[in-house]
Amino acid sequence: MDKNFGRVTIPTDENFVEGTRKIAARWGADAVRDCDGTAFPSNVGELAEKVYHTYFVVRGDDDWADAHPEEAHRAFLMSERVTAGDDSAVIEVMQGYFAEQIRPDWDHLELWEVYDRTAEQKTEEWTADPDKGTVTVRGALPMHEYTVNFLARIVWHPVQIYNYLTNHWTCARQKMYDPAFPETAVYVRRHMEAWCAAHPEADVVRFTTFLYQFTLLFNEKGREKYVDWFGYGLASSPAMLKAFEQEYGYALCSEDFVRAGTYNTPFCPPTARFRDWMEFVQRRVSATVRPLVDIVHRHGKEAMMFLGDDWIGAEPYGPFFQELDLDAVVGSVGGGTTVRMLAEIPHVRCREGRLLPYFFPDTFFEGNEEGARAELDRNWRTARRALLREPLDRIGFGGYLSLAAKFPSFVDRVSEICREFREIAETASEPWCGLTVGILNAWGSLRSWQCHMVAHELWYQQIYSYQGVLEALSGLPVKVRFLSFDEVREKGVDPEIDVLINAGDAGTAFSGGDAWSDEGLISAIRAWVAAGHGFIGVGEPSAWPKGGRFFQLAGVLGVDKELGFTLSEDKYNLTKRPHFITGDVRGEIDFGEGMKQIYALKGAEVLDVVFSERCRRDVNVGEVRLAANEFGRGRGVYFAGLPYSLQNARLMYRALFWSAHREEEMFRAFSSDPEIEVHFYPGSGIWAAVNNSERPKTTTCFDLQKRPHELSLGPGELKWFNL
Amino acid sequence: MDKNFGRVTIPTDENFVEGTRKIAARWGADAVRDCDGTAFPSNVGELAEKVYHTYFVVRGDDDWADAHPEEAHRAFLMSERVTAGDDSAVIEVMQGYFAEQIRPDWDHLELWEVYDRTAEQKTEEWTADPDKGTVTVRGALPMHEYTVNFLARIVWHPVQIYNYLTNHWTCARQKMYDPAFPETAVYVRRHMEAWCAAHPEADVVRFTTFLYQFTLLFNEKGREKYVDWFGYGLASSPAMLKAFEQEYGYALCSEDFVRAGTYNTPFCPPTARFRDWMEFVQRRVSATVRPLVDIVHRHGKEAMMFLGDDWIGAEPYGPFFQELDLDAVVGSVGGGTTVRMLAEIPHVRCREGRLLPYFFPDTFFEGNEEGARAELDRNWRTARRALLREPLDRIGFGGYLSLAAKFPSFVDRVSEICREFREIAETASEPWCGLTVGILNAWGSLRSWQCHMVAHELWYQQIYSYQGVLEALSGLPVKVRFLSFDEVREKGVDPEIDVLINAGDAGTAFSGGDAWSDEGLISAIRAWVAAGHGFIGVGEPSAWPKGGRFFQLAGVLGVDKELGFTLSEDKYNLTKRPHFITGDVRGEIDFGEGMKQIYALKGAEVLDVVFSERCRRDVNVGEVRLAANEFGRGRGVYFAGLPYSLQNARLMYRALFWSAHREEEMFRAFSSDPEIEVHFYPGSGIWAAVNNSERPKTTTCFDLQKRPHELSLGPGELKWFNL
Repeated sequence: MDKNFGRVTIPTDENFVEGTRKIAARWGADAVRDCDGTAFPSNVGELAEKVYHTYFVVRGDDDWADAHPEEAHRAFLMSERVTAGDDSAVIEVMQGYFAEQIRPDWDHLELWEVYDRTAEQKTEEWTADPDKGTVTVRGALPMHEYTVNFLARIVWHPVQIYNYLTNHWTCARQKMYDPAFPETAVYVRRHMEAWCAAHPEADVVRFTTFLYQFTLLFNEKGREKYVDWFGYGLASSPAMLKAFEQEYGYALCSEDFVRAGTYNTPFCPPTARFRDWMEFVQRRVSATVRPLVDIVHRHGKEAMMFLGDDWIGAEPYGPFFQELDLDAVVGSVGGGTTVRMLAEIPHVRCREGRLLPYFFPDTFFEGNEEGARAELDRNWRTARRALLREPLDRIGFGGYLSLAAKFPSFVDRVSEICREFREIAETASEPWCGLTVGILNAWGSLRSWQCHMVAHELWYQQIYSYQGVLEALSGLPVKVRFLSFDEVREKGVDPEIDVLINAGDAGTAFSGGDAWSDEGLISAIRAWVAAGHGFIGVGEPSAWPKGGRFFQLAGVLGVDKELGFTLSEDKYNLTKRPHFITGDVRGEIDFGEGMKQIYALKGAEVLDVVFSERCRRDVNVGEVRLAANEFGRGRGVYFAGLPYSLQNARLMYRALFWSAHREEEMFRAFSSDPEIEVHFYPGSGIWAAVNNSERPKTTTCFDLQKRPHELSLGPGELKWFNL
Repeated sequence: MDKNFGRVTIPTDENFVEGTRKIAARWGADAVRDCDGTAFPSNVGELAEKVYHTYFVVRGDDDWADAHPEEAHRAFLMSERVTAGDDSAVIEVMQGYFAEQIRPDWDHLELWEVYDRTAEQKTEEWTADPDKGTVTVRGALPMHEYTVNFLARIVWHPVQIYNYLTNHWTCARQKMYDPAFPETAVYVRRHMEAWCAAHPEADVVRFTTFLYQFTLLFNEKGREKYVDWFGYGLASSPAMLKAFEQEYGYALCSEDFVRAGTYNTPFCPPTARFRDWMEFVQRRVSATVRPLVDIVHRHGKEAMMFLGDDWIGAEPYGPFFQELDLDAVVGSVGGGTTVRMLAEIPHVRCREGRLLPYFFPDTFFEGNEEGARAELDRNWRTARRALLREPLDRIGFGGYLSLAAKFPSFVDRVSEICREFREIAETASEPWCGLTVGILNAWGSLRSWQCHMVAHELWYQQIYSYQGVLEALSGLPVKVRFLSFDEVREKGVDPEIDVLINAGDAGTAFSGGDAWSDEGLISAIRAWVAAGHGFIGVGEPSAWPKGGRFFQLAGVLGVDKELGFTLSEDKYNLTKRPHFITGDVRGEIDFGEGMKQIYALKGAEVLDVVFSERCRRDVNVGEVRLAANEFGRGRGVYFAGLPYSLQNARLMYRALFWSAHREEEMFRAFSSDPEIEVHFYPGSGIWAAVNNSERPKTTTCFDLQKRPHELSLGPGELKWFNL
C-alpha cells in the first residue's frame, strides 16, 4: 500500500487551481469534487485521478419547473391550532409557514382534512377561501381546537433555502419537480442522458441526491421550523398517493402523514399504514433512480449517492437499496456512529466519509487556526474508534479548499490523518469480536446506526444520553446488530445475539411504546434472558404501563419507574455496592439527562444511586441510576442514561460481558486503561492500540490468552504491533 | 380574653404529677391527656379543668379478640410476582409480609384471586396449600408473572407494631376486631357504656380512633412495607363485603382493592367501584360510631376524634361526618396545610392541633435543647401563617412531659407560643381575602387540604414540589376551595372561584389522568378561562396524550411537555422576560424537583428557563420552568414545581392576581417585603403583620386603599395594630 496516496477526496473550485494541486499532493488526494455553490476549473481532470461531479435529479432546471407546476413536490402540513370561540373557527392556513417555500395547493382540496384536535375527530363541515387563504369550520364545538391538514406545494428547495439563510447565497432559487408525475418521469431520464454526454470530465456522478428531500420547513420569519432527517412527508404528491392506492388497494389520507402534528417522526412508533408508505416510497425511488444509474454506467461513469438531502426512500439498509445498483455512498462523519452507519452499508463497493470541519467561513475565519485543528482532531478521534472496527474506503472534505489552505498547521494535521486513515483502511478488516450485541427498537436493521437522531448529527438534550450507547459501541470490540420488535415477535431473538439493548424514552419507537403491550414479546425476551443471555436497558426501557409495572421487563432489569402509584411502598434497596461493571469507574459516572424516579426491586444490585439533598430522613428516597440483576440464568442491567465518554464506553463494555455471563472473557484483547482501546485482526495477526486521550499513557494490554503486555502510547497515538 | 390561660392541652403521666402541675401553670394548660403508652395519675382530675382520655374501639381487649377470631379485620393483599418457568408457578403467599402482623385467611379462599400480571388477566386454574403456605397456578403461560390476591387476617394492630418498632415497646400485643361482624357490633357498644361508667375522671373521650386503620403493613423483617394514610384496604372483611353487596347490588372482588399492587392509593384516579366502596365505608363508620358517641354524651362527656390511626371512613370533609355528632377533632400539625385541614373541619365545635416536636427521646435527648427549640420554632412559624387565616380552637403537645421539662428554654418558648396562639385564636376570625382559589383534582372537597400526601406529613421527593402549593396558600390572604373534575363537569366551575390550580404528576388523581380525556371538561375550563378567569398549572397539569398535545390545556398554559414526538419542531420561545409575577424574586427561583422537557408555545411569556450546560449551540434547547399566557380574556400560568418557601408563596400570590387580571388589587393588605405577611380582620378592624424571617425587618404595609405605612418587626415577630 502507498501510505501517502489515495483514498482521499478534496473539494476544488475554479478560483483555486494551483492551490488544489499543492494540497492534493500534500494530502495524497486522488479525487476532487465540486460542492454546492462552487464550479470546477476547466482543466479539472488534470487535478486528480477522479473527478466527482454533483448531480441533482429533481431541482436545477427552473424552466422545467415553471412549465410543469402541477408536477411539483407536495407535503401535507398541519395548520396552527385555532380554538373555536363559538360554533365556527377561521383558520389562516399559512400562519407560521414560509410563503417563499410553500403554497397551499387549493387545486387539491379533496385531499385536505379538518380535525377537531380536542375530540380527536375529523369534521366535514368546512369551506376553503383561496383568496383569503383561510379555511372556515362550521358547526364547530366551542372551545375545541381545530386544525387543517392542507396539501402544500414546495416552491423552493429546502436545502437551498438553508444555504441562502446560513451561507447568505444570492443565486437563483431552485424549484422542484417530482418524477412520480408522467412528464417529469421522462424528463429526468432524458436530462441524465444529456448531462452525462455533456460532462466527459466527470468520472463519478455524485447524486445530491435522488427524488425526495427529508422534511425541512421554514417559518414565517424564514427560520427553520421543522426538521426531520428521516421525514417521508415531502414525497406525498397526488401522483404518489394515486400510485400508492393502486398498488396497496387503499388510500392514505392527510392524517396518515400529519398524525396530529408529529408527522411520523422516527420517535413515533410507526403505524402499519406508514410502514406501507415507507415501503412504497422506497420501491418507487429504486424503480425511478435505477434507470438513471444505468445511464451513468453506460457512459462509463460511477454512481455515488450522497446520504442526505433528497435521500428519502433510498434507505441504505432498506430492502430496495440493492436495486439502485450504486457504486458508492458518501456521507458526513459526525463521530463513530456515523462512521459505522456509512461503513456497513451493503451493496456498494465504496463508502466515503466526509470529515469535519467543513471548509466554511464559520470555522475558517482569521485567528481560528487552533479552533479548526481542534475540531478536526475531535472529529478524527471519535471517527477513528469506529474505523478500527469497520473502516470506510475513503475519506474526504468539503467546502472551500482555499480557506483551509490558509491554516498551515491544519493542512499538516490533515496530512497525518490521511496517512493514518490509509493504514486503517488497509489493515482493520474483520476484527476480533468479544460478543454480539442487538439493539432492539421499532426500526430494527432498517435504521442501523441511525437511532435517536432528529436533525442529522445535531446535539439535542433529549437524545445525547441515548446516542452515547451507539457511540460507545461504535468503537468497542463487539458485533452490533439492529433488531425490530416485529422480528423478535415473529422469529425470536437471533441466535447470534448475546446481549440485547433497549434504550429510549417511554412511548418512543426506540423504547418501544405499545410494542410492550404485547405479552408475546415480553415473554419471548424474558425466556431468552432466563436461558442465559443479557438485557441492558437505558432510560425507559420496555416502558408501557400494564399489570402494575411501568417497565414490562422490570423483573429482568431489577428496576422500575415510580409513576406515583406505588409511592406508598417502602423502597429499601438503596445501598450502592461495588461491582464488576463499575470496576474501572473513577469519580462520578455521567448519566447525562439521567432518569428520575427509578427504584430498585428487591434482589437487584444497586451500582449507583443519587439522594436528594433536601431530604431530612434516610428511607424511601434515592433515585437509582445503575443497577444489575439476575434473572434465571441470565442477567439484566439498567442505566439511567449513557452519554458518550471513554469512561462510559468502558462501563458499557463491562455491562455487556457481565450481562452475558462472560466476565472472564472480557480480559481478552483488553487494555487495563479505559482510555486506551485494543483491537486484534485475526486475518493478519496484527494488533492495534489507540490512545483516545490527550496524555501519554502506559497500559497493560491483554492478548487473547489474557497474557499481559506493557504498552506505551503518546497522546492520541495509534500503534500497530504484533504480540 | 386571658392571654395566659386556656386553649392548651398537655400530656401527663403517673410518674410526673408535680412536674405536670408546674408546667401546666407555666403554659396555662387547661387540659391534660394521656398518650399511647402512658397512664394517668390517680388524681388526674386535679391537674387541669379537663381530662382527655384515650379510647380504642377496635383493639385493647385481646380476650374478646381471641374469642372471636373470625371477627378480625381483613385486607386483600397482593403476593410477590412469580414468573412461571414452565406451565406452572408456585407462589409463597406470605413472602415479603410480616408473619406477626397478618395471616392468610385460608378459610375464605372463595375471595382469593390469581392474576396473570403480564397479560392482565385473571386465571381460575389454581390451588391453595395452607400447610405449605402456597398457591400453585396450573396451565400458566411460561414467562408470565403471576400474583395471588389473598385475604389476610390482621392479627396485630399496625400502629402498635409501629410503636414496638419505633419506641421499643414490650407491652402486650393488641389484636383487632371489626364491628361489621354481629357479635363485635354489640360488644363495642357494651364496652363503651361500661368504660364511660368506669372512667368518671374522663371529661373528653379521645377516640384513637374508630373502626378501620389506614393501610400500614410491615415486611418480613418487621420494617414498614406499605403505608397509605388514606388506605381503605383494612376495612375489607367478609362481613363488610357482604354488606356492600347487599346495599349496592353488586359484589366487589379482591382486584377492586389490590389494583395490581397500587391498592387505590389517593394518587390513583379513583374507579367508580372504589368510590362506591369509600362511600359505603364512610356510611358504615358513621352508623356504627354514632351510637358510641351518643353513649359518651349520655355520660356527660365530650367525644373527640383523633385524625389518624383508625380514622378510615371518618373523612372529616365527607358527607357522613356530620352524623358522627362529634364535639372535637384533634390532629397533628405538620405545617400550614395541616392547620387548615384541621381548622376547617365542619360539624365540630372544637379543633385542636398537636404541635411538634412530640416529646419523645428521638428529639429530647441530652444536648439537643437547641435542636428541640428549633424544631418547635419551625413548626410554629409555618403553622402560624395558617392560623392567621383560619385559627384552630386549641393547641397541644404529646409524648412524655418529663422529657420536655428538662429543657428550660424549650419550656419558655412554649409559654410564648401559647400566649401568641391565644391572641390569634381570639382575633383572627374571618380575615379579608383578595380572591378565591379552587384546587382542581379527582378528590375535590372530600380531601380538602389533603392533596399529595403519602404517609402523613412525611417528606417525599415526589410530592414536596406540589405540597408547596397548598403550604403557600395556607397562609395567603385568599379563600381556598377544593373542586373535583366531576363537579366541574356536572356544574361548571363554582362562580365564587377566580383562579383554578391543577398541580401534580401526569396520570395521578391530582393532575387528573384520564379525566382529561373528556373534551367536555377541557372545553368547560377553556371557556371559563377565556371568560376572564385564571388557570395555574404546576408540574404536569391537564396531562393526557391526545390530539398531538400532552397538556390538554397547553393552549391555556402556553406550554406543553415534549414526549419525543415533536422534537423535530424548532422551539424558539426561550427568552426569559421580566414580569409582574416575578416582581419580588431575588436570586434563583426554587422549582423543587421541577419538570423536564417543558417548552413554551408561540405567544407565551417565558418567565424562567434553564439551559443545559452541555449544549454547544443556542437553539432548540432550554427547559421552561415558569410561563405566563393570555387565553381569551383570561390567563394561564405554568410552574414546573413550587416547593414551599416565602419567596415561592409570594410568587404564587402574584401569579394568582395576575392570572385573575387583578394585578392592581394585589396591593391591598400587602407587604412590600415578601418575608412579611399582612392580614386584615374587617370584623374587628384589626391588622396583623407577621415577620416570617429570622431577621428584624422594615416593610411598607399597604392598607385596603393601597396607602403605604412603614412597619418594623423583630425576628419572627407577630404584630397586631390598627391603621
